[in-house]
Amino acid sequence: MSSTQGKTITCRAAVSWEPKKPLSIETVEVAPPQAGEVRVKITHSAICHTDAYTLGGNDPEGLFPCILGHEAAGIVESVGEGVTEVQPGDKVIPCYQAECRECKFCLSNKTNLCGKVRPATGNGVMLNDRQSRFSINGKPIYHFMGTSTFSEYTVVHAVSVAKVNPEAPLEKICLLGCGIPTGLGAVWNTAKVEAGSTVAVFGLGSVGLAVAEGAKAAGASEIIGIDIDVSKFELAKNFGVTKFINPKDHQQPIQQVIVDMTDGGVDYSFECIGNVDIMRAALECCHKGWGVSVIVGVAAAGKEISTRPFQLVTGRVWKGTAFGGFKSRSQVPDLVEKYMKKEIKVDEYITHNLPFSKINEGFELMHGGKCLRCVLHMDE
Amino acid sequence: MSSTQGKTITCRAAVSWEPKKPLSIETVEVAPPQAGEVRVKITHSAICHTDAYTLGGNDPEGLFPCILGHEAAGIVESVGEGVTEVQPGDKVIPCYQAECRECKFCLSNKTNLCGKVRPATGNGVMLNDRQSRFSINGKPIYHFMGTSTFSEYTVVHAVSVAKVNPEAPLEKICLLGCGIPTGLGAVWNTAKVEAGSTVAVFGLGSVGLAVAEGAKAAGASEIIGIDIDVSKFELAKNFGVTKFINPKDHQQPIQQVIVDMTDGGVDYSFECIGNVDIMRAALECCHKGWGVSVIVGVAAAGKEISTRPFQLVTGRVWKGTAFGGFKSRSQVPDLVEKYMKKEIKVDEYITHNLPFSKINEGFELMHGGKCLRCVLHMDE
Repeated sequence: MSSTQGKTITCRAAVSWEPKKPLSIETVEVAPPQAGEVRVKITHSAICHTDAYTLGGNDPEGLFPCILGHEAAGIVESVGEGVTEVQPGDKVIPCYQAECRECKFCLSNKTNLCGKVRPATGNGVMLNDRQSRFSINGKPIYHFMGTSTFSEYTVVHAVSVAKVNPEAPLEKICLLGCGIPTGLGAVWNTAKVEAGSTVAVFGLGSVGLAVAEGAKAAGASEIIGIDIDVSKFELAKNFGVTKFINPKDHQQPIQQVIVDMTDGGVDYSFECIGNVDIMRAALECCHKGWGVSVIVGVAAAGKEISTRPFQLVTGRVWKGTAFGGFKSRSQVPDLVEKYMKKEIKVDEYITHNLPFSKINEGFELMHGGKCLRCVLHMDE
Repeated sequence: MSSTQGKTITCRAAVSWEPKKPLSIETVEVAPPQAGEVRVKITHSAICHTDAYTLGGNDPEGLFPCILGHEAAGIVESVGEGVTEVQPGDKVIPCYQAECRECKFCLSNKTNLCGKVRPATGNGVMLNDRQSRFSINGKPIYHFMGTSTFSEYTVVHAVSVAKVNPEAPLEKICLLGCGIPTGLGAVWNTAKVEAGSTVAVFGLGSVGLAVAEGAKAAGASEIIGIDIDVSKFELAKNFGVTKFINPKDHQQPIQQVIVDMTDGGVDYSFECIGNVDIMRAALECCHKGWGVSVIVGVAAAGKEISTRPFQLVTGRVWKGTAFGGFKSRSQVPDLVEKYMKKEIKVDEYITHNLPFSKINEGFELMHGGKCLRCVLHMDE
């Protein structure tokens, strides 16, 4: 039993006091886990664009002050009443997409969108008492995505932690909390790309590269990467991209360029940017009769996608994905195993490492475009 | 060998001289079939909304003067060079969606959208010489959808005729040329509705009723029909509709009404009207995580569908269908067999019969809303 069990822990956390302002490293109090909850010592947390999206004030669900962070790994410090699936000392990945294994979503084999804790996590609190476990001088600080990993300790719902291989390096597998599974799963679970398929990937950030990696593993015959930053192509080749298109090099709409280049369009396309105009291009660059386009990126609030219905009537399919369709608690451990067996890349996505204290530098790196993933070392 | 083989046939046809004008029964010359073509004596032709759509000037591909009509049945009069799959005397259904069995679409098991004769049929002519087989005093009259069944004789591509059971009653099975397969196939081939599913059908015309019939056959547990004409509900019950909603009875958007009524939305929805706002409602009334919406109706030229990408990211899928995804020559004969075994309805869709000479009355009946299908008897 750890010496902190049942007690409030005082530790460092990066607090977002208001949108569009730098994060502030503060001393916070983290209450003990209640029934069905787990307190986790976060060892490593990467920065993802969704953190920046909410910090930028673009998230209609965003609540402040809050502790951001959702792509991380750590070690269970203590568990609340009734929690049997993890115990102190277990290596875990917090999952912003829960998996209760009881709700109608979990009982369906068609979706991973467990609804159990959403009413709480969507409001920045825990389900048990609809309160936050974080506070500063008694004033509550909201949770974020049910994870809040920009803190040395966090409290998550037991349905939101995946227990992973104790041999796994936490400083690497923290990336399996969001971006990589999203890209791989978009290909494997949502689109179900078959061997020999042609694929277009819009946006060559971490998620887009994971899409390319997933498509290569699925046996795609051609993987076209589309990005306005030509410097990304060399790197992208390592992830499976076979051809590169810079829309700025073409007069015609990018969907027309791709249709012409591929004798009618690609079999599968993936939008990994979050731009509704590109989502349309991604659909329309698909082949008549069978092309499937998957929306992976998160668009700004209120933005809408549109197209002519003829695009769908002539056989294209428009879908989307969240966390790549992976059932989190069940499948994240499998992804960790795949990494341990070198079947999927992880290290290659980590372009930067920083001490936690320099988290704001990490956000700047993300915006700069030269960073795939920056891993924060929480004890530094 | 028929006495007319190899000769031009002079017969009656309903010619559409220009958009928005009544059809005119004229004496036309129908040239003999060339290589890969079949001349068919049309015995019965139903009127479908797509005929009215083109006649109304809404079809950007519409060419005038033309001979409309695409939901029909008849008997082969003669065949052109190289045609082996049908011979004079065979009962056939002309198919506006061809099936060549050679192109990449036909070789794919994902689509029925054969592209072989599209470049010709889209331009109102035959593939062989890019000319029309119809003329009046030497002036060509365009073909329509590769079928032009509002004529006592028509010429179609051999890849566009389905040979059917010689015992089948042509005055009934003519309906298997368009509306009924479109509705049944949207359910069976495009959506693949499973037993126990909940279904919403927007628009209770022939296609919507065929969707309901297909959903009932697939074992759907609830089939919600949505229409602003409450008088359709009694009839719709016979086709499987279990619940009726009139959007005019509700203040809230219809998608919200359905979501509330079904504990989160339906498993499958079908838009059988051709209205882009209803297409959006049909998508948004689907259940998070797995709902699939199929666009069946044909929207006016230039109209666009739109929604928030969040609808797709949270697991809804947007698709469309043309001729219900049926491979025409291969599968229309199967539908005829199903009708002969009383496994699918056909007679019940025929609300009116008229002599060919009264075709304009038939169009008026379609617009009136009390007619499901009006069958024209071509020899009257």
